[in-house]
Amino acid sequence: MPLRPWTIIGEDEIASTRIFKLHRDTAVSPRTGETVTFSRIEAPTWATVMPITPNLEIVLVRQWRPGVREFTLEVVGGIIEAGEDPTVGAAREAREETGYQGDAPVELGVVHPNPAVQDNVCHTFLIENARPSSVQDMDAGEDIEIVPTPLSDLPGLVSSGTIMHTLALSAFWWLRAKRPDLDPWRLIR
Amino acid sequence: MPLRPWTIIGEDEIASTRIFKLHRDTAVSPRTGETVTFSRIEAPTWATVMPITPNLEIVLVRQWRPGVREFTLEVVGGIIEAGEDPTVGAAREAREETGYQGDAPVELGVVHPNPAVQDNVCHTFLIENARPSSVQDMDAGEDIEIVPTPLSDLPGLVSSGTIMHTLALSAFWWLRAKRPDLDPWRLIR
Repeated sequence: MPLRPWTIIGEDEIASTRIFKLHRDTAVSPRTGETVTFSRIEAPTWATVMPITPNLEIVLVRQWRPGVREFTLEVVGGIIEAGEDPTVGAAREAREETGYQGDAPVELGVVHPNPAVQDNVCHTFLIENARPSSVQDMDAGEDIEIVPTPLSDLPGLVSSGTIMHTLALSAFWWLRAKRPDLDPWRLIR
Repeated sequence: MPLRPWTIIGEDEIASTRIFKLHRDTAVSPRTGETVTFSRIEAPTWATVMPITPNLEIVLVRQWRPGVREFTLEVVGGIIEAGEDPTVGAAREAREETGYQGDAPVELGVVHPNPAVQDNVCHTFLIENARPSSVQDMDAGEDIEIVPTPLSDLPGLVSSGTIMHTLALSAFWWLRAKRPDLDPWRLIR
């Protein structure tokens, strides 16, 4: 039996934070006819950005993350502002978080960060010929160490549990798909 | 200057749902000395599961997702229950969502679904020699189509935007890392 769309019969905002709103949606199951409530997080568009230097280092960032309360090594990423072109936002995020600039960002792909609960997407960008060009520009909630890393180190950094962010792994998938010459595994000697 | 840990000086629960709690944490930046508030989602452990059949099909699921309000094609996944061994939970999720059973689940890796905001991890499992063995066992909020898919189709399904879930792409990374013989790209003729 083909799947049929669910019918939304109610939406309530139950919390609002600086970075998302939390809703309680009520929907009717087409399979059972039962009424079910779901949590839905309304979130802005996100982007991950891979600035890559001429000698094939990817500029990663290490920062304190309040969700897991640990320092984590990640790809550059952030929120695309309302009305901002994602490509412009990607260059801005790379510049603010790392001080690196390079060629115009090229979009590689788009993913759902969490389609079960969140309504947003995350665009993934590549910036080639990235070079240090300015100082970081962090807001009060940021505290970021710049970590240029050979692309060929990435498989080992994931296997050792140093890179754990799912959006980083998705970015690396898209890098392989669109730029197999930059596939980290292929660059391992 | 090395990064220093942030100091948490307050935590308030501001909402509670069936699948997570939302907290507002207050912390002091070691860099600026400023007090900053963060949203933190307290979520249970998650797992993704890749049941793979003897003829190298991965058993995917298509379901209506209330976050994006669309049908999405994904890897099997769900919540590990409190006190449940993740390996047991992985076999349970595969059985409930698809009716497939196979060899004991093998853990491939672990990722952070969203370390900026969420406190949880997601374990990724492989189940080999998966075969249909029972009917699905869905709860009222689920509505799941079983989609056995040749592993070699995965790169195309991501590139076409059919598979967009970041946790699926992370699962595929770990499959390549731990079982290169099952790397979807390597299986493309």
